[in-house]
Amino acid sequence: MQERAVRTREVILRAAAEVFDEFGFSGASISKIMKRAGVTQGGMYFHFPSKEALAQAVMVEQGGGLELPPGENGLQRLIDITLYLAEELQTNPKLRAGVRLAVEQGEFGVQDDSAYRAWAEEFGGQLSAAREKGELLPEVNVEELAWVLVSAYTGTQLFSQISSGRTDLHQRVVSLWRYLLPGVAAPPLRPLLTFAARRRRAVA
Amino acid sequence: MQERAVRTREVILRAAAEVFDEFGFSGASISKIMKRAGVTQGGMYFHFPSKEALAQAVMVEQGGGLELPPGENGLQRLIDITLYLAEELQTNPKLRAGVRLAVEQGEFGVQDDSAYRAWAEEFGGQLSAAREKGELLPEVNVEELAWVLVSAYTGTQLFSQISSGRTDLHQRVVSLWRYLLPGVAAPPLRPLLTFAARRRRAVA
Repeated sequence: MQERAVRTREVILRAAAEVFDEFGFSGASISKIMKRAGVTQGGMYFHFPSKEALAQAVMVEQGGGLELPPGENGLQRLIDITLYLAEELQTNPKLRAGVRLAVEQGEFGVQDDSAYRAWAEEFGGQLSAAREKGELLPEVNVEELAWVLVSAYTGTQLFSQISSGRTDLHQRVVSLWRYLLPGVAAPPLRPLLTFAARRRRAVA
Repeated sequence: MQERAVRTREVILRAAAEVFDEFGFSGASISKIMKRAGVTQGGMYFHFPSKEALAQAVMVEQGGGLELPPGENGLQRLIDITLYLAEELQTNPKLRAGVRLAVEQGEFGVQDDSAYRAWAEEFGGQLSAAREKGELLPEVNVEELAWVLVSAYTGTQLFSQISSGRTDLHQRVVSLWRYLLPGVAAPPLRPLLTFAARRRRAVA
């Protein structure tokens, strides 16, 4: 029973993500999501009492189920993760919906930065590893830079979404790194960092 | 008559900005805006046929009426402008509402990047002046960097809005510049650039 409940919750979240991704918060409805998930009203309300609760869960769990690219933690892997996310933002409904809701949350009266903080923690973990390996300039503050990266990435994907439906997102993420790396990476590392779209191993 | 129409339009836009700033798109209504502006239905519909048209105008004209800080065009003035915008985003209803609508536009079915492009043009103008004065590293591409700056700034103000109601925005803009300047500014200029909150003159 427990296992089945977990599975049902997952099916509902996936359906909710698809509907929010397609229609946004105000265009989505519980009945649309129930129909897409193939669950009864009872099953739905057991897990999520409202559309707001569903949106909150999709927003906060946006990174769940992602298979981040492998490799040794550090600056190259952080770059790889940002490029991987640029790809997933084209096609992955959970990530797309979670990001969309996190950006548009003001429209439905929510003010919750936990999704942003989760990414800052993920990026900060890679930066801490980079620091240990001597990959960062001494003046870099790991926590401050993690927040700068999440901020800059958020705006990059948003502007790209509005301009091009994110078709140019990969190139824009590369541009962002181009101007950030001189203030971040130790000079000997810089020429070794690569921006290939589908790297599966870290170089450093 | 012509002049009066212009004034009425301005009064309506100002009222619309206040209402959108406070309630967002879905929480705003034409009647709320009419009441706030003190105009009749006829006066309103003469200028704006719908709430969508009002939102579009507020979004696109978000920078109208700003008094950008004076100074010689270039990198210091660009920094001054970004810090000035961080202040105005605390209190200026037209800018706040325009930015809010530009971020949340997906929720009301709009996809219009013209407000973002207008800022990219403004920032790009400062960067072109900086290039002429030899303030930029030779590898900087002015147009690419302008888009990176608008992207990064958009995300910075959004994350700050959600985390702190923008009370920490000034500090976050300074952090952004801290990591970007080494990839942007010619080394002799860097120590001369300042981040005082209310600079009224450029140094460079």
